[in-house]
Amino acid sequence: MSLIGVFDSGVGGLTVLKSLYESYPGHDFIYLADTARLPYGTKSAKTISSYLDRNVEFLKKHNVDFIIVACNSASTVLIEGDPAQKMDYGIPVFNVIEPGSEEALRVSKNKVVGVLGTRTTVLSRAYPKTLTQKDKDVKIHQAAAPLLVPLVEEGWVADPITSMIVYRYTKPLLEQGVDTIILGCTHYPVLHQTFQKVCGNAVELVDSPRALKQTLKENFPDLDSQTSESKKGMIRIYCTDLTPHLEQVIGYLMAPYPYQPAQMVDI
Amino acid sequence: MSLIGVFDSGVGGLTVLKSLYESYPGHDFIYLADTARLPYGTKSAKTISSYLDRNVEFLKKHNVDFIIVACNSASTVLIEGDPAQKMDYGIPVFNVIEPGSEEALRVSKNKVVGVLGTRTTVLSRAYPKTLTQKDKDVKIHQAAAPLLVPLVEEGWVADPITSMIVYRYTKPLLEQGVDTIILGCTHYPVLHQTFQKVCGNAVELVDSPRALKQTLKENFPDLDSQTSESKKGMIRIYCTDLTPHLEQVIGYLMAPYPYQPAQMVDI
Repeated sequence: MSLIGVFDSGVGGLTVLKSLYESYPGHDFIYLADTARLPYGTKSAKTISSYLDRNVEFLKKHNVDFIIVACNSASTVLIEGDPAQKMDYGIPVFNVIEPGSEEALRVSKNKVVGVLGTRTTVLSRAYPKTLTQKDKDVKIHQAAAPLLVPLVEEGWVADPITSMIVYRYTKPLLEQGVDTIILGCTHYPVLHQTFQKVCGNAVELVDSPRALKQTLKENFPDLDSQTSESKKGMIRIYCTDLTPHLEQVIGYLMAPYPYQPAQMVDI
Repeated sequence: MSLIGVFDSGVGGLTVLKSLYESYPGHDFIYLADTARLPYGTKSAKTISSYLDRNVEFLKKHNVDFIIVACNSASTVLIEGDPAQKMDYGIPVFNVIEPGSEEALRVSKNKVVGVLGTRTTVLSRAYPKTLTQKDKDVKIHQAAAPLLVPLVEEGWVADPITSMIVYRYTKPLLEQGVDTIILGCTHYPVLHQTFQKVCGNAVELVDSPRALKQTLKENFPDLDSQTSESKKGMIRIYCTDLTPHLEQVIGYLMAPYPYQPAQMVDI
């Protein structure tokens, strides 16, 4: 039985936690949201790196076996820093950008890949850089989709307004002939069905949960056989700042799975 | 000729600056956006207060005659702190919450007033407290409208999607019988026409530009006669952080008026 640490600047990474819990229900999970310092996207690599150190330290103190950094901005810093740094923490620390890029290249047939993300993720060009490093012939089309995070946080998920907005953001990518779209933001998996309906089934959607499932299978092939099916793991959630609205969003993102009430920590 | 200082945590307050420039084109303006520290809404009153001191100091160094704090979160701190503090700065410092509340009470016939704002502004209850202080019989209905700021920053203004979202946010207020709605966020004046179309002409819309016009008329009755019509004033814009996207939003919010290129300042 493992203890898996998941970290994000906000609560969006709970989409990753939830999907991991579905794949590995017998393991324990600990989630850290650095809500006091969000958004990370607008901060310098140096600042994010120092936050990252602190967050990894916190999770290590809880004896996690490995850590998934679900935050796209922190992932960018992880892969763009000293390549050796990735393992500096003493335990495996996974980002979401490399798994997402690898999965997109694995499933795309025409090697024309779309990337949707926040404005900061798109401007950082983290996905295009990583995709091109892994396959120099891939064609990439990016678009920023800043309305999707507030739409998810409003809970407007199965909603015609959201479908229209998803249509507007994906149309230019589809017109460029992409056959695969990376949903490059932790909130977007909530809109997976909407995306699939709007884009049609011929388009492959790669989000962090899907990509990480592949990565973990390769790195820890025995993870799903390590537990008995009868015993369910425990989910603990920590936030560096906690408001009633945040608690609501946590409940809505985690439903229907049980978790211990979110706790505030000062780190 | 006066030099008028306008301060906001972001660029939304440019809607206030623009409207003041339309009313008083012969005066000079200086705008400060504390973009490196936004959002203010999620920060403590103590922290916002210390930011406010620094920002007022910056504007005073440029010899402004008075300051308008266009930011709703900073305004809350201004009016909820020590009442004497308002004039502590040595020059008049105006907030947007008191003028907005006064104007709403002036124009509402049935004294049922709606307030739309960001989640933080609504939770702070700054408008209900101020409105009730000024008229204990007023009935207030608030609603958070978190999608409107990103819609304005996307530039989706004369857009059917935006009309639908405005309809969804205002419908519950109208059903409660409000005859006046306070647009309690610096970005919302950009959507004034959309609001008026969706709510109908019978509903009075009170935004910060409209409310401040009234306040300035009362405090400085000679302001519009102090300049010749032939000489246009100058607009300078400072930001504590500046990105290409921010420059774009500034251009779009200020159009068609001329201003000196936005400068980054480290304060």
